Amino acid sequence: MSFIRNAWYVANWAHDLQDEPLAQTILGENVVLWRGADGDVRAAEDVCPHRFLPLSKGRIAGNDLQCGYHGLIFDGHGQCVGAPTQAAPPDCKIREYPVHENMGMVWIWMGDPALADTNDIYDLPEYHWKDWGAAFGDALDVEANYLLLCDNLCDPTHVNYVHPSTLGNPDEINAPVTFEDTSWGVLTERLTPNSAPTGFVAAFGNHDGKVDMWQRYLMYTPSVSIIDFGATAAGTGSWQEGGEGRIQVYSCHFMTPITETRTIDRWLHVRNFQSDDPSVGESISEQFRIAFAEDKDILQAVQAEETRHEGRPKIGLDLDASAGLFRLKINRLLRAETSAQAAE
Amino acid sequence: MSFIRNAWYVANWAHDLQDEPLAQTILGENVVLWRGADGDVRAAEDVCPHRFLPLSKGRIAGNDLQCGYHGLIFDGHGQCVGAPTQAAPPDCKIREYPVHENMGMVWIWMGDPALADTNDIYDLPEYHWKDWGAAFGDALDVEANYLLLCDNLCDPTHVNYVHPSTLGNPDEINAPVTFEDTSWGVLTERLTPNSAPTGFVAAFGNHDGKVDMWQRYLMYTPSVSIIDFGATAAGTGSWQEGGEGRIQVYSCHFMTPITETRTIDRWLHVRNFQSDDPSVGESISEQFRIAFAEDKDILQAVQAEETRHEGRPKIGLDLDASAGLFRLKINRLLRAETSAQAAE
Amino acid sequence: MSFIRNAWYVANWAHDLQDEPLAQTILGENVVLWRGADGDVRAAEDVCPHRFLPLSKGRIAGNDLQCGYHGLIFDGHGQCVGAPTQAAPPDCKIREYPVHENMGMVWIWMGDPALADTNDIYDLPEYHWKDWGAAFGDALDVEANYLLLCDNLCDPTHVNYVHPSTLGNPDEINAPVTFEDTSWGVLTERLTPNSAPTGFVAAFGNHDGKVDMWQRYLMYTPSVSIIDFGATAAGTGSWQEGGEGRIQVYSCHFMTPITETRTIDRWLHVRNFQSDDPSVGESISEQFRIAFAEDKDILQAVQAEETRHEGRPKIGLDLDASAGLFRLKINRLLRAETSAQAAE
Repeated sequence: MSFIRNAWYVANWAHDLQDEPLAQTILGENVVLWRGADGDVRAAEDVCPHRFLPLSKGRIAGNDLQCGYHGLIFDGHGQCVGAPTQAAPPDCKIREYPVHENMGMVWIWMGDPALADTNDIYDLPEYHWKDWGAAFGDALDVEANYLLLCDNLCDPTHVNYVHPSTLGNPDEINAPVTFEDTSWGVLTERLTPNSAPTGFVAAFGNHDGKVDMWQRYLMYTPSVSIIDFGATAAGTGSWQEGGEGRIQVYSCHFMTPITETRTIDRWLHVRNFQSDDPSVGESISEQFRIAFAEDKDILQAVQAEETRHEGRPKIGLDLDASAGLFRLKINRLLRAETSAQAAE
Repeated sequence: MSFIRNAWYVANWAHDLQDEPLAQTILGENVVLWRGADGDVRAAEDVCPHRFLPLSKGRIAGNDLQCGYHGLIFDGHGQCVGAPTQAAPPDCKIREYPVHENMGMVWIWMGDPALADTNDIYDLPEYHWKDWGAAFGDALDVEANYLLLCDNLCDPTHVNYVHPSTLGNPDEINAPVTFEDTSWGVLTERLTPNSAPTGFVAAFGNHDGKVDMWQRYLMYTPSVSIIDFGATAAGTGSWQEGGEGRIQVYSCHFMTPITETRTIDRWLHVRNFQSDDPSVGESISEQFRIAFAEDKDILQAVQAEETRHEGRPKIGLDLDASAGLFRLKINRLLRAETSAQAAE
Repeated sequence: MSFIRNAWYVANWAHDLQDEPLAQTILGENVVLWRGADGDVRAAEDVCPHRFLPLSKGRIAGNDLQCGYHGLIFDGHGQCVGAPTQAAPPDCKIREYPVHENMGMVWIWMGDPALADTNDIYDLPEYHWKDWGAAFGDALDVEANYLLLCDNLCDPTHVNYVHPSTLGNPDEINAPVTFEDTSWGVLTERLTPNSAPTGFVAAFGNHDGKVDMWQRYLMYTPSVSIIDFGATAAGTGSWQEGGEGRIQVYSCHFMTPITETRTIDRWLHVRNFQSDDPSVGESISEQFRIAFAEDKDILQAVQAEETRHEGRPKIGLDLDASAGLFRLKINRLLRAETSAQAAE
């Protein structure tokens, strides 16, 4: 499988790690995560090297993990540190994975542990701000390659066809889409000035007249997507700041490739309004749930057909340019990783 | 896959085509069928050439079909005629399939469109006659190659072993089976003169004494089977005409190969008695449902074992001759098609 | 597949063979078993050589079996002896399998019929004794190679980790395990003298003080396991005989390889106490059911990971020695069978 390995991916919600070890497949590898008695999360290859029983079928023992077949004990670096059925433990070690918690999630580094730097983990400042409200969504399990999800998250034009009854807005069909290459990925924008409010803006904003709306799709390599969208009363501000009746939401997708044809998309959102009313967060989540299920249906069908039509050339459209740039950047990173490994 | 392509197959019941496009796999190809605003049915390859989303996940737009991902529009000849996200549609075309309605079904031509002639579509005149009654059955989904179904429909001898409690008749075991090569396929006959009525004849006919019964299996290439069976009071007529208390039923099977190991058998029947009483039609269907489920069970088991015992020679019996002739004719047609393609 | 063929395996419980033929896969081969009108069980290849319909879909006819498609009849030696659709039956024969009943089970010989000797069938004398009580358990269907089950049944050390709440006993962790090579397989023993009673001994025995306990794992090639365990008041007897308050149970596993990765483990048990109270037998079975489900869970996970990690070397532990010897003996038998075939 060809995935970028020297990167931080979301392994799970932090609150799902309690008293039991948790099995997870990430980039095609079986990983076991557990929270030690000291409260820290650890991760290792999910296999006991004796009989290959997954360690996730065992139990947490202090800060370590004990195999459920013959009791071998492994620490957070994958080192075997105990074997109760015999005098001394065997000299063996399994793969360790650096992990770190941020934004209510456990992040995991799938590449060379020596290169892991927790400063590289994605962070959205507004998530931590007191006057903004964050709400967790779901772990959407999609039978599609993560790049098909990335394509979708670089592409505002699909909204009117995939989400006609939820997020679509006929006024936006002719709004120009622009995109640009950035240090962290690709930014795709669609500004809709002086327009009637879309359903979402009408539902959560408080606007009698026309509004200036923005949709900004920030697609970070390898697989974090932030959709910044909002509105102000027409002519009173900008997407950057100010404006009367400003409402703004960050819809955040943290995509973890499970296999070449399966991705878990953990999503949450952060808003600048009614931040202390959880029912507003849940109400936004309900809207998103409908829309993301529509995307999932489309993307799974596309994945199935890609396999079926392997090798068949596709027709290009103008709207592909932004997603195409993102895939180009992913390929460059993959090549760089491969070259670095070869040079070692 | 080796199927006869230059032939008309049943794609679906006509009444199942309403407001939504319908996906269908036929001869291993994914096809989308839809009924345009003008009432005509159309068919095309079920794939948008942009991202490979099946067009059946889109929507009908007038007489055309619109993709559910980015709104590309295709006409009934598979030509792309619209692309709302950009100035001009891309120059692209997908495969079209000629279709035509007859006998309450949509027929599809899977080969070269230039060779499609709707006069070649199978028709049973009695289906259209006012004093005969037609009743639709089911779409029986069988996990077996269509030729295993054809074998079965050339073979009256299986009836006493597969359907002992429904269609079987101990008197028929020793009735001679004859068959002949015809221009359209193979005709297999079993005449049972001067016999006690079978359960079916007893249930639907009105005979105190002996009857002359007939079973005529008309197996048309590539995959239409008509079983003509009936009875008259003994010595008063023939299968061709006349006879006291004559009852006659055409049991019709329209088999569509889905894959090498799956077939949909859409069946209906036409009778010369109580033609205006739908409950009689349903009552006949109920009998058939039991019997066809028994066939399905046997044929699926045979298919599974054919795969398991691939390459193992089979023992031949006298009863194989009729089905063997039909398979020979199928192979000749396949070779003729292959030669014609090579000569192009 | 590499299985020992010249051996008796359990094909089914004897009481499951009544009026209907029974399909069974054994060592990857499809077998049909049936009980003739004379009460004797017969077995043959589960395929009619005409169309490959499994004969298990047919019916018993006297002592023979009749195919459910066209009525061919086969006797208990696999010889075709009837074909009602034609004058004479075809000259054909399918494979026969010697079978024999013992201990409430039907045993089948999967190798050369000429070598089958019913004296080689495993027998536990106590099963037949009047003052001992036997109780049948279940047919445990495990998605794992039978040797993974054998490993488990040569290994007392797993008990404290896999069955901590049922069979486990902290006192046993440090009890020494010994094993020896025998003419019939491998014997692994753990004696726990002068110990507090385990849960099982406490529940079914009647001991106020300390006990001498034994666990003796008799693993017979290719796949019969007898676990002889019990207890007496400390210092009053031995596992061989005598002792105050002696309770003894034989837990018997008859493992039939279905495929390389699936095994059916039919189990029963025989006890020296309360032999005429079936509720005691059922009560013991309930305990075993919980424990064997725990083993199944572990062994299926190990099988799945073996496939995943194919070719990866395993870490060895001291406890592997007994199971390792059993596998060595199995390999020797396999090689001997292969050499004998080559020499023919």
